[in-house]
Amino acid sequence: MVAGLSGTVGESGEFAVVGAVTARFPQAGDVTVGPGDDAAVLSVPSGAVVASLDMLVQNRHFRLDWSSADDIGHKAAAENLSDINAMGGRPTALLVGLGVPAGLPVSWALQFADGLAAEAADVGASVVGGDLTEADVVTIAITALGVCEQGVVRRAGAQPGDLVALAGRQGWAAAGFAVLSRGFRSPRAVVDAHRQPRPPYGAGTRAASLGATAMIDVSDGLLQDIGHVAAASGVSVDIRSGALDVPEPLHAVGAALGVDPLTFVLSGGDDYGLVATFPAATALPDEWREIGRVLDVGEPGTVTVDGAAPDESAGHQHFR
Amino acid sequence: MVAGLSGTVGESGEFAVVGAVTARFPQAGDVTVGPGDDAAVLSVPSGAVVASLDMLVQNRHFRLDWSSADDIGHKAAAENLSDINAMGGRPTALLVGLGVPAGLPVSWALQFADGLAAEAADVGASVVGGDLTEADVVTIAITALGVCEQGVVRRAGAQPGDLVALAGRQGWAAAGFAVLSRGFRSPRAVVDAHRQPRPPYGAGTRAASLGATAMIDVSDGLLQDIGHVAAASGVSVDIRSGALDVPEPLHAVGAALGVDPLTFVLSGGDDYGLVATFPAATALPDEWREIGRVLDVGEPGTVTVDGAAPDESAGHQHFR
Repeated sequence: MVAGLSGTVGESGEFAVVGAVTARFPQAGDVTVGPGDDAAVLSVPSGAVVASLDMLVQNRHFRLDWSSADDIGHKAAAENLSDINAMGGRPTALLVGLGVPAGLPVSWALQFADGLAAEAADVGASVVGGDLTEADVVTIAITALGVCEQGVVRRAGAQPGDLVALAGRQGWAAAGFAVLSRGFRSPRAVVDAHRQPRPPYGAGTRAASLGATAMIDVSDGLLQDIGHVAAASGVSVDIRSGALDVPEPLHAVGAALGVDPLTFVLSGGDDYGLVATFPAATALPDEWREIGRVLDVGEPGTVTVDGAAPDESAGHQHFR
Repeated sequence: MVAGLSGTVGESGEFAVVGAVTARFPQAGDVTVGPGDDAAVLSVPSGAVVASLDMLVQNRHFRLDWSSADDIGHKAAAENLSDINAMGGRPTALLVGLGVPAGLPVSWALQFADGLAAEAADVGASVVGGDLTEADVVTIAITALGVCEQGVVRRAGAQPGDLVALAGRQGWAAAGFAVLSRGFRSPRAVVDAHRQPRPPYGAGTRAASLGATAMIDVSDGLLQDIGHVAAASGVSVDIRSGALDVPEPLHAVGAALGVDPLTFVLSGGDDYGLVATFPAATALPDEWREIGRVLDVGEPGTVTVDGAAPDESAGHQHFR
């Protein structure tokens, strides 16, 4: 605990909490002006900046009884750093907006800050600024900034004949969510995956170097997010279910809950893996697993599994 | 109303509303990738980007019965564009996170987007991306990005002997808030100032060119924000009350409410004027009004008015 700072955010006041939080954010070399001024300043030698903003709301994106403040900091950062990864970029900075009830313990805000800073440090990024305000429930807005030194990879660009490949874990967070939703706390591996995703950082820039034609991160569901690439590219995609990895913990959760574990893989979000398309002749390193092909049959935007339409209701959409 | 989009955000769904909103955001020349991908990409020929994030929460920062959706879009953009202005920067882009109840009319979201886009267009900036999610009350997070081609002006840097100057209106929004809080809707000029601030865009880059030594925007209160400059610079500041403009509408509100109108000027926030310090010999153009001097007497961070300590309670701090 910081000297003189204890109790609730309301008891300490905005300026004291902001001061204590920002003291926990080390600043890397590309930061010219860090927290504490009207805005942050970052050097961008490449001449282009990549930027994304996501908002997370308590009881919709996270629950305080399922995840620690540190977990939520890690996840909020990871979800946004992943967007930079998905453009083929290298993240350099985060800005954080935090709305909290006045009765929230200061220690929660500090542990959240530590989780955020640790996840950012994993990729060499700094938390350079933000805002603290009062809200009825914990509300988080994160902007991630980065640079695309290997080129920008968009959702549009997939070509018929390209191979479709996946980097990172897929289905783990969904299995963890399923377990937590039913009141369980194990298997620990999937619960931890829900609490702190592990995006394949660096795979995005390496995909750009390999000549990826399109890319997205899997935030809402594998089939749904591949559908966004297919729609943006004006193509269709077929996934081979046999090529998908269904690891042991997902089988265990599926058996316990009476669910086909492939469902977690096809429809689960929140692992923040990457799906990219590459010219067919590309020699993919081990971090990429080939899972399907880009086609020019049927309606653009269509995603099939083993040549057939998958179940509906795969993937997450807010307000639905 | 967009064809096929009516009723509430919940009835239309996330993707339809996002599509309709982003269709209202024209993209300027420095945008390489606009809304609809994992992240936006902006060209930054100057090699440095300036970035700020603010969060606004319904019933704390704005009220739906006091301000239209268009007003709130203008104000949310203005507050963030002002942070770039305050660094001596030129804003280039906004990212917007919008949390709304499912029952909010789609028309509200579209009018908010129009207000945001119009305010951004005023300074040549584009709304390049964002996030839409569900929340119990309307919750807005904005990140503004910009470039500092004339140099960066920080809060630290004021030197004893510098003159202190103000650009833009001051006290108008506070008078408007005072009127609205008491159930009135006039004088219209101050109510409008509360609903849609008019920051002195461009004054920030011009101040950088003029050699400003320190700068801040007045968001929380004139004395409080000058205090931030004084503290960051390790100096004190004395303001001459006779140099402050107390325009007629503030006299009218003060008379009606039994309040010294100078209070609005000294303690009011939300007009997003700029306070800057300049070397004493600087010839200031008309947009700047000299209001005081930087001193090296007393405790660093101290702000006096006509040589004496002002009333306490001047300025806004969240959770207080």
